[in-house]
Amino acid sequence: MDTLVALSLQPLENHPSLHEPASEHSGAVVDFKGIVRRDEAGSPIEALEYEAYQPMAETMMQRIATELGAQHPCDHVLILHRIGIVPVGEAAIIIRATAKHRAEAFALVSGFMDRLKQDVPIWKVRGVPINPNLASAPK
Amino acid sequence: MDTLVALSLQPLENHPSLHEPASEHSGAVVDFKGIVRRDEAGSPIEALEYEAYQPMAETMMQRIATELGAQHPCDHVLILHRIGIVPVGEAAIIIRATAKHRAEAFALVSGFMDRLKQDVPIWKVRGVPINPNLASAPK
Repeated sequence: MDTLVALSLQPLENHPSLHEPASEHSGAVVDFKGIVRRDEAGSPIEALEYEAYQPMAETMMQRIATELGAQHPCDHVLILHRIGIVPVGEAAIIIRATAKHRAEAFALVSGFMDRLKQDVPIWKVRGVPINPNLASAPK
Repeated sequence: MDTLVALSLQPLENHPSLHEPASEHSGAVVDFKGIVRRDEAGSPIEALEYEAYQPMAETMMQRIATELGAQHPCDHVLILHRIGIVPVGEAAIIIRATAKHRAEAFALVSGFMDRLKQDVPIWKVRGVPINPNLASAPK
């Protein structure tokens, strides 16, 4: 299984690997995008800020993909996680699994998300409020 | 839940609905693409040809989406199925579910695929062989 894992400060949708054609033997492509929502913990935000302990985060994402690939063999797996400021409506994570048949691809993508928060040192630093002046005004 | 179902003779990847941004309240987008593979029942092909009983196919796809949406509420569901000749490497079906959280989106997309072949009158007419002259030559 061919696996690409990357952290990126840039919008994930522009990553060149997302635009490569699948192998002719792959019949199923499952994509998951986790998008920053307007509401974070009940308050409207402009963006979320993510930080990572980068070498360990990449190592752990690679390891989880390898473990899941042993149970659910796929042809290709692509995992992109954004760090830094991620505006509302943009992807914080994109996972793509490509496989001969769909069951393996669904299981890998969904299984990866189940393990991400628990095992990978990437965290939300803060929500960037809609109006920073208001947010920092003295009470 | 906002649902769009369409059959199309054109490449699905170009469908304008795929390029619309998600709602600001949606945090999860799950896409499934079913791609025509080079091998069909052990023989190499150039393309698959699909036919549909169109009004019933669209009605059934809408009904399945509505039923699944009652169990797994999503914000938007998009179901595109190609008919006619679909070359190897191109999508015969694309399903996108957009939801606040990922569990509902995964369940809807994967559940739809489980019901598609059984309940929707769209079928493979034939595989288009690599070399039609050879395929039709007398033995």
